[in-house]
Amino acid sequence: MINKLVAKIQKTGAPIVVGLDPMLSYIPGPVLKKAFSAYGETLEGAAEAIWQFNKEIIDNTYDLIPAVKPQIAMYEQFGIEGLKVFQKTVDYCKEKDLVVIGDVKRGDIGSTSAAYATAHLGKVTVGENRISAFNEDFATVNPYFGSDGLKPFIKTCKEEKKGIFVLVKTSNPSSGEFQDRLIDGRPLYEYVGEKVAEWGMECMGESYSYVGAVVGATYPEMGKILRKIMPKAYILVPGYGAQGGKGADLVHFFNEDGLGAIVNSSRGIIAAWQQEKYAEFGEKNFGAASRAAVMDMKEDIAKALENR
Amino acid sequence: MINKLVAKIQKTGAPIVVGLDPMLSYIPGPVLKKAFSAYGETLEGAAEAIWQFNKEIIDNTYDLIPAVKPQIAMYEQFGIEGLKVFQKTVDYCKEKDLVVIGDVKRGDIGSTSAAYATAHLGKVTVGENRISAFNEDFATVNPYFGSDGLKPFIKTCKEEKKGIFVLVKTSNPSSGEFQDRLIDGRPLYEYVGEKVAEWGMECMGESYSYVGAVVGATYPEMGKILRKIMPKAYILVPGYGAQGGKGADLVHFFNEDGLGAIVNSSRGIIAAWQQEKYAEFGEKNFGAASRAAVMDMKEDIAKALENR
Repeated sequence: MINKLVAKIQKTGAPIVVGLDPMLSYIPGPVLKKAFSAYGETLEGAAEAIWQFNKEIIDNTYDLIPAVKPQIAMYEQFGIEGLKVFQKTVDYCKEKDLVVIGDVKRGDIGSTSAAYATAHLGKVTVGENRISAFNEDFATVNPYFGSDGLKPFIKTCKEEKKGIFVLVKTSNPSSGEFQDRLIDGRPLYEYVGEKVAEWGMECMGESYSYVGAVVGATYPEMGKILRKIMPKAYILVPGYGAQGGKGADLVHFFNEDGLGAIVNSSRGIIAAWQQEKYAEFGEKNFGAASRAAVMDMKEDIAKALENR
Repeated sequence: MINKLVAKIQKTGAPIVVGLDPMLSYIPGPVLKKAFSAYGETLEGAAEAIWQFNKEIIDNTYDLIPAVKPQIAMYEQFGIEGLKVFQKTVDYCKEKDLVVIGDVKRGDIGSTSAAYATAHLGKVTVGENRISAFNEDFATVNPYFGSDGLKPFIKTCKEEKKGIFVLVKTSNPSSGEFQDRLIDGRPLYEYVGEKVAEWGMECMGESYSYVGAVVGATYPEMGKILRKIMPKAYILVPGYGAQGGKGADLVHFFNEDGLGAIVNSSRGIIAAWQQEKYAEFGEKNFGAASRAAVMDMKEDIAKALENR
């Protein structure tokens, strides 16, 4: 799957992943109204609105981008109905040949991590059958448990040719509270990065590993160091756009070959129609606004990479 | 909810939580067979078997224990059908007046953590309505993101009078890989423990905080230190039984008042019928075997506390 991701990034020329993290406040009034009149102001109604919203954005962007990253929390808050739409979104994106990164940030002790790996990347055994549950292509994983929490994910990646992105340095303001603590003069995230590089050697694709890392766009200097510590890890970079990360900050996350990083934007793309810059599209054409935002983001990153 | 948990522990005299972490291999053949013949060897069939298994164990133990802890990963691996049974289990346990600790180990950056807090402890706004999704009483939370990943959970705890248990020192063998790294001579888990104490001061119940901690039974010496660092935090102690933690190891996790800790056992109780010790019950009476295992665990802990 890492080979497919790299190939799709090269084909589209867009190291971009669209974060499908829908909030009801991002959804245009008419879409909400239609869903609520069919299902009421219920979890089903909210789920239907999210599904119609996602579908429009996917239909308007899938040919420009290699991958999407649905954030499961945004679906989980609507309970079973929300998770049904998470699954429907994963399936639909795969039909459109997009690589699907399940932003699930799971992680636990060994036997439990194995169940999470099965849930999101693998197949569960029921009697004589082996059945997929959510079946994303990649999942994000929390490293706090250490190797034995990660190993079941790596095992599943090998079996299914899928991948993970391990949280190394997250994009949020307080990420330093624990991640930056100095151990013998070096921050914790560097040790986590070293482990990612080590785990990654166990399952290499053609040029990059099935084991990638998450490093926030909001910390470009740290990205520079982590890029060197984990040369074969694809870096998933959140924090571009709404969280403050800029194109120029991103260059440090890429390798010399112009590969090695994929930049996420969620609100900046899916709620583009709410920005003044894309107001001309109007709420009816919110999908077209998202398409324009993807093209602008692609240009911003390409320029930054040219000028480095 | 922390007040209810403490009151129920005092009433039952059992600082015990039963981990409802069903694996298909724990479920007696006749239960599996019946579910598969109704729904086939499908996700629905697996989910039905898990539900019947859980129900029997709950019916046989609810009067002895204060709380249950369903591990969501074990349900998530069966996709939507599995998560429906997670929800059904939560609801059924609440009907039985049990405190429900959702072992979900969620955590993310602020806005996403808010969605997870809503999913598991809060209410989501849909139009004019505020609706609960999974609606557990407590949730376990991963601290890797620092304060801004935790604050949305604390906000929801205050609003809903619910609680969280933050991972401090986990029970697995490689937990030390990052958690034990020394920062100015002190391990990371102590810094996390200090933060738990600090966050906990913001939302105190009568004698304990709504913000508790997870510390593995497998690390009793660390439990001793963490008990002092977080005097007002209830400690959820996994790792008893199948993972190797013994009654005598547990005393350090309790305060002088005999409170302050609740010990989890999963396999040791729900799969008791598979142990030689409880073989006399036979697979048909697996619920009664679980009941006997709860009584033995209660006695083991009570003895250890008497002898300290």
